[in-house]
Amino acid sequence: MNDRFLKACRRQPVDCTPVWLMRQAGRYMSEYRRLREKHTILEIIKTPDLAVEVTMQPVNAFDLDAAIIFADILPPLEAMGLSLEFIRGEGPVIHNPLRIAADVAALRVPDPRESLSFTMEAIRLARRELDGRVPLIGFSGAPFTLASYAIEGGATRSFVLTKSLMYNQPETWHELMGKLATMVGEYLKAQAEAGAQALQLFDSWAGALSPADYRRYALPYSRRAIQTAQTSASSVEPSSGVPVIHFGTGTSGMLEVFKEAGGDVIGVDWRVDLADAWRRLGDDVAVQGNLDPVALFAPIPELKKRVSEVLAQADGRPGHIFNLGHGILPQTPVEHVAALVDMVHEMSRR
Amino acid sequence: MNDRFLKACRRQPVDCTPVWLMRQAGRYMSEYRRLREKHTILEIIKTPDLAVEVTMQPVNAFDLDAAIIFADILPPLEAMGLSLEFIRGEGPVIHNPLRIAADVAALRVPDPRESLSFTMEAIRLARRELDGRVPLIGFSGAPFTLASYAIEGGATRSFVLTKSLMYNQPETWHELMGKLATMVGEYLKAQAEAGAQALQLFDSWAGALSPADYRRYALPYSRRAIQTAQTSASSVEPSSGVPVIHFGTGTSGMLEVFKEAGGDVIGVDWRVDLADAWRRLGDDVAVQGNLDPVALFAPIPELKKRVSEVLAQADGRPGHIFNLGHGILPQTPVEHVAALVDMVHEMSRR
Repeated sequence: MNDRFLKACRRQPVDCTPVWLMRQAGRYMSEYRRLREKHTILEIIKTPDLAVEVTMQPVNAFDLDAAIIFADILPPLEAMGLSLEFIRGEGPVIHNPLRIAADVAALRVPDPRESLSFTMEAIRLARRELDGRVPLIGFSGAPFTLASYAIEGGATRSFVLTKSLMYNQPETWHELMGKLATMVGEYLKAQAEAGAQALQLFDSWAGALSPADYRRYALPYSRRAIQTAQTSASSVEPSSGVPVIHFGTGTSGMLEVFKEAGGDVIGVDWRVDLADAWRRLGDDVAVQGNLDPVALFAPIPELKKRVSEVLAQADGRPGHIFNLGHGILPQTPVEHVAALVDMVHEMSRR
Repeated sequence: MNDRFLKACRRQPVDCTPVWLMRQAGRYMSEYRRLREKHTILEIIKTPDLAVEVTMQPVNAFDLDAAIIFADILPPLEAMGLSLEFIRGEGPVIHNPLRIAADVAALRVPDPRESLSFTMEAIRLARRELDGRVPLIGFSGAPFTLASYAIEGGATRSFVLTKSLMYNQPETWHELMGKLATMVGEYLKAQAEAGAQALQLFDSWAGALSPADYRRYALPYSRRAIQTAQTSASSVEPSSGVPVIHFGTGTSGMLEVFKEAGGDVIGVDWRVDLADAWRRLGDDVAVQGNLDPVALFAPIPELKKRVSEVLAQADGRPGHIFNLGHGILPQTPVEHVAALVDMVHEMSRR
């Protein structure tokens, strides 16, 4: 088994830097687009055979060091009682967003083993399909990022509704975040029990908050979710918990605070120099990142230069996992993805 | 004359912390909305009497320490040959965005004294109207932010077209940025000559770039524009240039690099602790910021707490200009704006 990725999660030495890509299964691949002509995103996610097919597409196409189960951060909100739809060209929409205390009180916190059983089943099948080739990552949105979708009803630039609820109805906010922390923690734990060998908490929008607000309104809930997730035994090192990657974007101003919420690996975006980020984070965590996803649109020699800059910043320290700073973009040229993965391996070979 | 703001730009002691708000003239004010029922944004900008009327609205309504001329960052692109339209509910659209070298070669660099004479005239009239009550700020978008609008044709989340041009056609990129640096520098200088007593360079999207890309593809052009602007004599201190505020968002990971481009004052957003930002920026610049614009949606006691946190971080150091971390939002409750301005003065009184 290729265990570079899991070793790097634990800051153990590896033969070369492991690489996987956020949203590595997606629209930039023709195999995925063909399947999407016949099925909606939610159909794929909720049909374990299809979810596994999509999970395997990038692993079969490229020399990636990890697979990530095909799912989305929003189905847990659906399981809690929100009405979720992916509208073509617009992205996710929640038809009954949370606005008042009664909405939050009505939210259920169901057992994800049942309410999200399709993902657990997909994980079991994907493990069988992978047959030890590379480890499988499970994931969840973080409480703050999920709260923002639940309150705004979709993507937002300003987070006015989210922060207004936070500032004007703090008790409702904390009740909501408490429910989300439980849901997210149990969901991650269930994925590990089903076979996920590492877990990633996506706090994509953490960077919308000031460091003080993050600490006050988001950190305690991410911490609780991570701690719950880590109570699952690691498949490779049963004495320790399953490794958790804690990822956010726009966190350059508060990496130290973000780290306090926990995680064996901290995922950083491209808005900070990786060496600088690691210096601030300290020696006791691994670091994942941080190529600008748009670098994949550069000509190969220019892409190579950028990959070498990221690797130089990581300086061969054990515990670097190469990734983009955010998800791969739909229009990304697929041959550049193949080149990137090989480049990372070749250029980092010890 | 209330010169708190200009003194703070030069890090001189003041009786209390000066405050103004980015986009302080705008949709959150009923006076502005009434005028907008009869006129488009571009009509207001291009009719000096109307631009002055809007410029004065927040200064008449609140105890602000500076006025900022009502204009927009995009008219210079129109003067250079792009076709600009503000579409209701969608924001700015450029109908002939730049895509190839020939588009960039065709861009004009006209004298802003003529091509943007409406703004110079508005500045002259606004100075007369203000009659020394508070100083008047002129402004321009920074070359990178303008380039992104010119290439994308409007707002973007991913900057794929902008960065693709940068990576794939570097000569075209540098030609474009060279033209923009000249245009922006001359535009700022012309505003100072017309009577603007301080200038702000808005690099709203600088934070889309990695620190290395910012340094390579944006910094030299911002620096040149700032240097040109600073050749205008200050109205209060003729021996030195007019003070320049250099503002960006999402720059927490690269404040040190951002500062290298210049500016007497560095504007920072709320994604970083102000004390931390100032420590990194050093003692030789003033700092503007950095309340989250959404804090204005909080109840007054909560808003007060947040204002006191920003003031505590600035710690009474000469050279703090209180502002939001980005523009005021259209839905902002107007009475909270009045309360904010008074709070800043009262709580910072020496």
